[in-house]
Amino acid sequence: MKLGRMNHVGVAVPDIDAAIVHYRETMGAAVVTRPFDLPEQGVRVCFVHTPGHGGSEGTQVELLAPLDDQSPVAGFMAKNPAGGQHHICYEVPDIAAARAEFEAMGKRILGPTRTGAHGTPIFFLHPKDMQGILTEIMETLREETH
Amino acid sequence: MKLGRMNHVGVAVPDIDAAIVHYRETMGAAVVTRPFDLPEQGVRVCFVHTPGHGGSEGTQVELLAPLDDQSPVAGFMAKNPAGGQHHICYEVPDIAAARAEFEAMGKRILGPTRTGAHGTPIFFLHPKDMQGILTEIMETLREETH
Repeated sequence: MKLGRMNHVGVAVPDIDAAIVHYRETMGAAVVTRPFDLPEQGVRVCFVHTPGHGGSEGTQVELLAPLDDQSPVAGFMAKNPAGGQHHICYEVPDIAAARAEFEAMGKRILGPTRTGAHGTPIFFLHPKDMQGILTEIMETLREETH
Repeated sequence: MKLGRMNHVGVAVPDIDAAIVHYRETMGAAVVTRPFDLPEQGVRVCFVHTPGHGGSEGTQVELLAPLDDQSPVAGFMAKNPAGGQHHICYEVPDIAAARAEFEAMGKRILGPTRTGAHGTPIFFLHPKDMQGILTEIMETLREETH
């Protein structure tokens, strides 16, 4: 496969509203999306926009708070109560092709391909096969043309 | 301050050459810079380029391997032997102004402003003041005009 755009860095936070205040007031973020629940992943999420080169859209920071104790993020928060970097997400043009390539390389994929926070199909790769990094692969969001 | 471009995500790795193979062969990176020692920070580093939006330069992955047991990254590696996400670096136009702003907000800064891996001045903010994230602030690299 060909390395795609780094769509976002997933950051686990204990309190999503407090984290939004941090990114707005301490870091000076101009755009933070409205948080919403993603029950399929057990998290409440929102995105902090960062500027890219030359006015382009940069890599986002995805703020993740566990919805409950059963959340996949709950274990991370127990180990990192202040929060911390949780995963990195790269885009691919075709999620099925990417999944097949990682499978062919013997990389462990965590569960089925499902819909991610941007509404496109995603899957996660096991950190033990990815240099210790929980890696999300997402299909690039195609802007609708009218 | 105004949130700047996410220049890179710092990723600690046990073996920088093996990590380069991973980013090239598993992730499909086309450009990885030549590793070099940064003794001031106690690390050997190189950068994986990722594509940004519309052909622009994306957020880089900075691979970091500790130079010795005294390296600031050595403690992280002891806790995360497989490697993992270590810090996030944002650009600012003026490092001294940014430092003064974070100081005025009461954020703990780790050591003096020094020269980072891109050759521009940087400093690090304490993760406990930054939602659990070790945060690097770097002055944007200015391309020389001839």
